[in-house]
Amino acid sequence: MGEFELTILGCGSARSWARHLPSSQILSYRGKLFMIDCGEGAQREFFRYGFNLNRVGHIFISHLHGDHCFGLIGFISTLVLQGKTGELTIHAHRDLEALLAPWLDYFCRNDLFKVVFAPLPVKGGVIYEDKSLAVTSFPLRHRVPSYGFRFDEKAKLPHIDKSAAERYGIPLKELQAIKEGAGYTLPDGETVPNERLVLPPSPSQSYAYCSDTVYTKSIVPYIKGVTVLYHEATYTGEYAEQAKSRYHSTAAQAAEIARQAAAGTLIIGHYSSRYKDESRFLEEARPIFPDTVLAYEGMKFRF
Amino acid sequence: MGEFELTILGCGSARSWARHLPSSQILSYRGKLFMIDCGEGAQREFFRYGFNLNRVGHIFISHLHGDHCFGLIGFISTLVLQGKTGELTIHAHRDLEALLAPWLDYFCRNDLFKVVFAPLPVKGGVIYEDKSLAVTSFPLRHRVPSYGFRFDEKAKLPHIDKSAAERYGIPLKELQAIKEGAGYTLPDGETVPNERLVLPPSPSQSYAYCSDTVYTKSIVPYIKGVTVLYHEATYTGEYAEQAKSRYHSTAAQAAEIARQAAAGTLIIGHYSSRYKDESRFLEEARPIFPDTVLAYEGMKFRF
Repeated sequence: MGEFELTILGCGSARSWARHLPSSQILSYRGKLFMIDCGEGAQREFFRYGFNLNRVGHIFISHLHGDHCFGLIGFISTLVLQGKTGELTIHAHRDLEALLAPWLDYFCRNDLFKVVFAPLPVKGGVIYEDKSLAVTSFPLRHRVPSYGFRFDEKAKLPHIDKSAAERYGIPLKELQAIKEGAGYTLPDGETVPNERLVLPPSPSQSYAYCSDTVYTKSIVPYIKGVTVLYHEATYTGEYAEQAKSRYHSTAAQAAEIARQAAAGTLIIGHYSSRYKDESRFLEEARPIFPDTVLAYEGMKFRF
Repeated sequence: MGEFELTILGCGSARSWARHLPSSQILSYRGKLFMIDCGEGAQREFFRYGFNLNRVGHIFISHLHGDHCFGLIGFISTLVLQGKTGELTIHAHRDLEALLAPWLDYFCRNDLFKVVFAPLPVKGGVIYEDKSLAVTSFPLRHRVPSYGFRFDEKAKLPHIDKSAAERYGIPLKELQAIKEGAGYTLPDGETVPNERLVLPPSPSQSYAYCSDTVYTKSIVPYIKGVTVLYHEATYTGEYAEQAKSRYHSTAAQAAEIARQAAAGTLIIGHYSSRYKDESRFLEEARPIFPDTVLAYEGMKFRF
């Protein structure tokens, strides 16, 4: 179990209000909250689940269709009303700034809070980085420019081998240097090499979000080996033609992508409003990729 | 019982998501639906209650604070996705067009559907009229320009006196002319005067919406004698100072306005997020105006 926690705020598509909310997720990592897409009503779910507004610094918008971004103005407006200060960076298609900036100026003017627009690079690339995490965007294929996001934990430091530390009587203050590669010099002058003091680091976890997109193998290299993959599955196989013509995917296609990418777990969502029951999505995905789960509002997934 | 039906979609204020939804109402009259305010998420409630999107022709926005208008883009976008055609008129402060038009152009472009912006007259006046209904706007007092709306049924035609109609053997095809004032000429040439054929018309009903506003008697003339009055009551008396400084009203002030206007029934709403229970609002309003009820999401009121 790693340090990521994904919370699904909404996993429906544009017209599926009766059973679902439009797309939005919160990825929590070491106390930081990253919002991915922000459909209408996302603010309500954000506060319902008790998230702390001061922990949100970055919002990633996959594409400019309403069910992925109409909640932005309300969410940001409420953050300002609640007294959030500092900066909030929105990573989105460059058209968003011209659309949203006049609304922010009219409804959310505040000297203590600033929204920064970070246009997504057209061909994708690293769009966020801190000392423990990197976020990469990559192009999906949809009716409008659409991007996937991959969150990667950076390589971790090794663990201290506690039995070795006890055996050699290593003081606490030396442990960080040893994690970073140092050996330890004993009182008699002998140096114990680093490899005898440490155990392998925890594996780095990763998450990728792919919605909305038609089935395309072109995304596989970007999501290779990801721990958890969220891939849209708007339709079941019966509507494969509609999926293709509307640049969406079926459950089987999402599973096929997960299989090719050798993902750990596949979460599917973005269900079309025509479905009253999502069990068919699982039935179609699991034969291809057994470790598939259905997204639902309120779902939490730790990895 | 008249022909109005009011449905409360949301009756909270800007930050009261935990218990309420932001402001929005549907006033139904003879098959037409009028939306009053459109806070975020209003579309979900609209469809939840089974309203027919083709019946909505006019939306009235009281003022440009987010909790009264952030749902517009999502609602209109969904109307277009669902295939609504024709025109939709938005009655709102003139600033709305410059804000919303670029979003409509980007997200809802459709040759078969048109949004018409009708700026509210600065001093108020008649803003909608058809053969049976008139809508008047009037200025409220809030931190930004804010308007109330009054819906008045026009004077109705008298009822046919069924016993007289039978006695004189009046054929069905004559009834409309008699309702409109004609007499009836008997086969022997004698004319029965109109007043012997009709009974008094049903009384005309009316509805007024006042939110957001500070307590001000200046609105009383506009809402005089209204059948049902919705007046904001953001605070209880304990927070009267805050109500005044933020240009909102208390429950007692809403009741006082209803009393002065000799309204039939008062509905209060727009509760501040600080309240976990609205019973105090009623306790404070009813001694001043006994026929007060609390708004709640899903409430239907026929009159």
